[in-house]
Amino acid sequence: MALFLDCLVALLAAFGLVCIVWPPILWDKMARYRRKKHKGSEERSMDLNEALEKLDALQKKSYAYGSGLSALYLDGDTVAPPDTEEGRALAVSILAGEWHEKFTAPETGELLAFLTEHREELDQVRRRQVEELKRDYDQDRRIPADEYMAFQKLTSEANAVWKRAKAGNDFALFLPYLEKIVAFNRKFAGYYDPDKAPYDALLNEYERGTSMAFYDPFFAALRERIVPLIRAMGEKEQPDDSFLHRHYPAEAQRKFSGYLMEVMGLDRNHVGIGETEHPFTLCFNNRDARITTHYYEDDLASSMYSVIHEGGHAKYDMGVADDLQYTRLAGGVSMGLHESQSRFYENLIGRSLPFIEAVFPRMREFFPEQLADVTPGMFYRAVNKAQPSLIRTEADELTYPLHIMVRYEIEKRLIDGTLEAKDVPGTWNRLYKEYLGVDVPDDTRGCLQDSHWAGGSMGYFPTYALGSAYGAQMLKNMERDIDVWGPVGRGDLSRVTEWLREKVHRFGGLLEPADVVKNACGTFDPAVYTGYLAEKYGQLYGL
Amino acid sequence: MALFLDCLVALLAAFGLVCIVWPPILWDKMARYRRKKHKGSEERSMDLNEALEKLDALQKKSYAYGSGLSALYLDGDTVAPPDTEEGRALAVSILAGEWHEKFTAPETGELLAFLTEHREELDQVRRRQVEELKRDYDQDRRIPADEYMAFQKLTSEANAVWKRAKAGNDFALFLPYLEKIVAFNRKFAGYYDPDKAPYDALLNEYERGTSMAFYDPFFAALRERIVPLIRAMGEKEQPDDSFLHRHYPAEAQRKFSGYLMEVMGLDRNHVGIGETEHPFTLCFNNRDARITTHYYEDDLASSMYSVIHEGGHAKYDMGVADDLQYTRLAGGVSMGLHESQSRFYENLIGRSLPFIEAVFPRMREFFPEQLADVTPGMFYRAVNKAQPSLIRTEADELTYPLHIMVRYEIEKRLIDGTLEAKDVPGTWNRLYKEYLGVDVPDDTRGCLQDSHWAGGSMGYFPTYALGSAYGAQMLKNMERDIDVWGPVGRGDLSRVTEWLREKVHRFGGLLEPADVVKNACGTFDPAVYTGYLAEKYGQLYGL
Repeated sequence: MALFLDCLVALLAAFGLVCIVWPPILWDKMARYRRKKHKGSEERSMDLNEALEKLDALQKKSYAYGSGLSALYLDGDTVAPPDTEEGRALAVSILAGEWHEKFTAPETGELLAFLTEHREELDQVRRRQVEELKRDYDQDRRIPADEYMAFQKLTSEANAVWKRAKAGNDFALFLPYLEKIVAFNRKFAGYYDPDKAPYDALLNEYERGTSMAFYDPFFAALRERIVPLIRAMGEKEQPDDSFLHRHYPAEAQRKFSGYLMEVMGLDRNHVGIGETEHPFTLCFNNRDARITTHYYEDDLASSMYSVIHEGGHAKYDMGVADDLQYTRLAGGVSMGLHESQSRFYENLIGRSLPFIEAVFPRMREFFPEQLADVTPGMFYRAVNKAQPSLIRTEADELTYPLHIMVRYEIEKRLIDGTLEAKDVPGTWNRLYKEYLGVDVPDDTRGCLQDSHWAGGSMGYFPTYALGSAYGAQMLKNMERDIDVWGPVGRGDLSRVTEWLREKVHRFGGLLEPADVVKNACGTFDPAVYTGYLAEKYGQLYGL
Repeated sequence: MALFLDCLVALLAAFGLVCIVWPPILWDKMARYRRKKHKGSEERSMDLNEALEKLDALQKKSYAYGSGLSALYLDGDTVAPPDTEEGRALAVSILAGEWHEKFTAPETGELLAFLTEHREELDQVRRRQVEELKRDYDQDRRIPADEYMAFQKLTSEANAVWKRAKAGNDFALFLPYLEKIVAFNRKFAGYYDPDKAPYDALLNEYERGTSMAFYDPFFAALRERIVPLIRAMGEKEQPDDSFLHRHYPAEAQRKFSGYLMEVMGLDRNHVGIGETEHPFTLCFNNRDARITTHYYEDDLASSMYSVIHEGGHAKYDMGVADDLQYTRLAGGVSMGLHESQSRFYENLIGRSLPFIEAVFPRMREFFPEQLADVTPGMFYRAVNKAQPSLIRTEADELTYPLHIMVRYEIEKRLIDGTLEAKDVPGTWNRLYKEYLGVDVPDDTRGCLQDSHWAGGSMGYFPTYALGSAYGAQMLKNMERDIDVWGPVGRGDLSRVTEWLREKVHRFGGLLEPADVVKNACGTFDPAVYTGYLAEKYGQLYGL
């Protein structure tokens, strides 16, 4: 369904924009720390206390620059008049450069080196902050400023050219930019981690701990199970989903979105909803999140599930513990885990029969005529209709990972040099035929459909598939721990949220992604995900 | 009618947030400059060129920080969920502090000192930039950082307390904050200009070149002419304006706003319109402006004239020459001149009979039932109904300056120490009785009505009245130069805009406010303004 921030988050991540410790808690902690340290050497304790104050200030500044940039992006994507990009781009590039310069200054390095030296004296939160900031710092320092600026300029131009290329089905127009973006990614991979294969270094950027050695068998397992399933379903009758395309006035859909947010426990005093071409989520902190959606008057499911999806992202960021706010550890820890939360709410809960049965009566109040002859069962089957298609963002839960695999294969080969950018369309079309059985009619609906590459991101796509696999394992464990479906069937999602908050949300960036996964999923096992898909679609399609 | 930015602009101004030169023009100018300089000493020319590059970078940074802060404010005032102020305030205070620190760094002083030394070699634009930045720098340096931060913290708290005090008619609650704000303003006045009387220094901040010696006779002249006029009108029959309070659905008013923006020549590709409690205008640059309004379904005139008023502000900022963009000289030069533009469009044009005759047919298409029995003449008389009232922002064109005078008198005495903050309500009520003949029933509708003092601003109010006086003189000169009313009567405002652009807008901050006034108004003469009011209201009320 909808993307999570997509280029926006990639861009902000590229700027090293992270967050900071909320003062009251902070002062309290520091006061305690000071008391403890007073037993030791006065002078050394002063130094450490000063360093901790500087650490807090640094993180707060990061939050402030990030907030300013986020506000500019949010404005640009939601309410700004169309021809105002030029001045905003200038402001964004300067502000991002200002933060980059500040963060990569030698004083930051000295501070982090000092704190690293004293890491044993720090509590877990501070230790982790220092580790993460040190890693960011070392990485940012390895990227020469001129290359960083050149890459920014390139992707800014590439994005505009990509829009034209996509609109005009003109891959040749985009090709020179794609070539340069691949070259930059190969070079940057070396800055990210010179000890890794370039694509591994890129994958690790978006989901730390992943690599081709991790993804290859994961995708192979998915392919092995999903491709035959899709073939078998192709011979079965498709459910009728025509009622989803009756006339659903935007105004009624807006009210329905409000109801869905209420069901999800998203407090409107802290979560805003806007309207954009491509839905996204942006969290300033755990008390200020924004989601967006797009209303199509001939498509009820599109906005309904994008609200639930983006709401899932917001639930994650807003569930992060208060004492991690305004620090490097605020917000979700990785792209894969973020997608696990959005897809959990969207697919595992939102597309389940109990959930649909729970919300259907109210849904029918919003759309009495349109749904007069529809039952919850019909609705459930319609929103779970699965069939191979061309566009990733419109794909169903079952075929979605195959769209990701195409992109993974292509990125892998582009980065290791076995595929040239000019050959992307041919490879794309061949893989879509092979995995999904569809013929790609043009590059607009083919390799030009996504904005990620134009935005400079390579290695991002696989996290989308990973999130779904995490989610399936979380559901299995959740079902073991609590009664999931009884409350959900009554429209009560509080226990689901509580479980996720306990196992995932509250940690923010305090743990490594792999440790959060372990905590919530146990040992990672794609068979749980494929098993879930096989069971669900087997039942739906009578296989 | 609506305020212009009010506290927002005061706050941004306090942060020293100004703007910057657009690169293409800049490089072109610098290239020309370099060619010229190559005739002289190579080394010295290099120095100057480097300094000019630094000057440009400094101004661009100022634009970037200002844009980030503006985007945060805009978000907070328009779409942000209600309980999200805390995190945003943190980001704003840090970003503002970052800019303050950068701008007041010794390197800025060295750069500006060097360029001041070489001022004879600079073109007019650069020379003026250096002068203005040097003035900002010297002033900002005189304000101790701790006092600056303390004042920010105070006004942030005061604003929240003022809202509660206003809601609860509780002046005592606000009093300790008002006392501190007066004390800060007296102290800051010394930093602004130690050679001036404190209130003169404050007045000069909002409209350079003004002082009590300027305003005292101005206000005396207004009072002398307006007070008897209002007394005389009190015996005449008031026009019927009940039709303005029929039911005007917000949706139809939104469409009507779009039409008004079209008439004003505000290009929707570059000017956005939002909805807020208190209307304001915010311009990022001359190709990106936002206005806001508020729709009351029982009041057609409120939103109609706030759109025209804010549109007038936007016309000014958007009319500033391209080569001043992203520099210290972008945007309008002073508060008084800004108000002159908003009030020119709102009152002199928007409340004129020819304008109303021109837009009335289309207006009736938006509101066919509501205006079925109304004629342009009736509408003209209704929107020009004048009578003494309690609330400044709702006051008519004639009585408005009297509301300002009350505030001017009180500020003057607070700052010179002849009035204590605790005595403000009594003085307020006495002056309202004396000038406007009304009894103030409570402080909510009395001295607690405006946000300016809570926001820390003293010396700002008088610019509102000044703008109206400037406008009346501009109209007189415009009528001498071009056919104003023929085209306006056909809904064509292009010549009016052209005249204002030529005489006022294009200069931005390139000239002193007094020189722009001289250019557009000739010698300042309040009699033109009072004459205009006497004639207009004499006709309307048959005096």
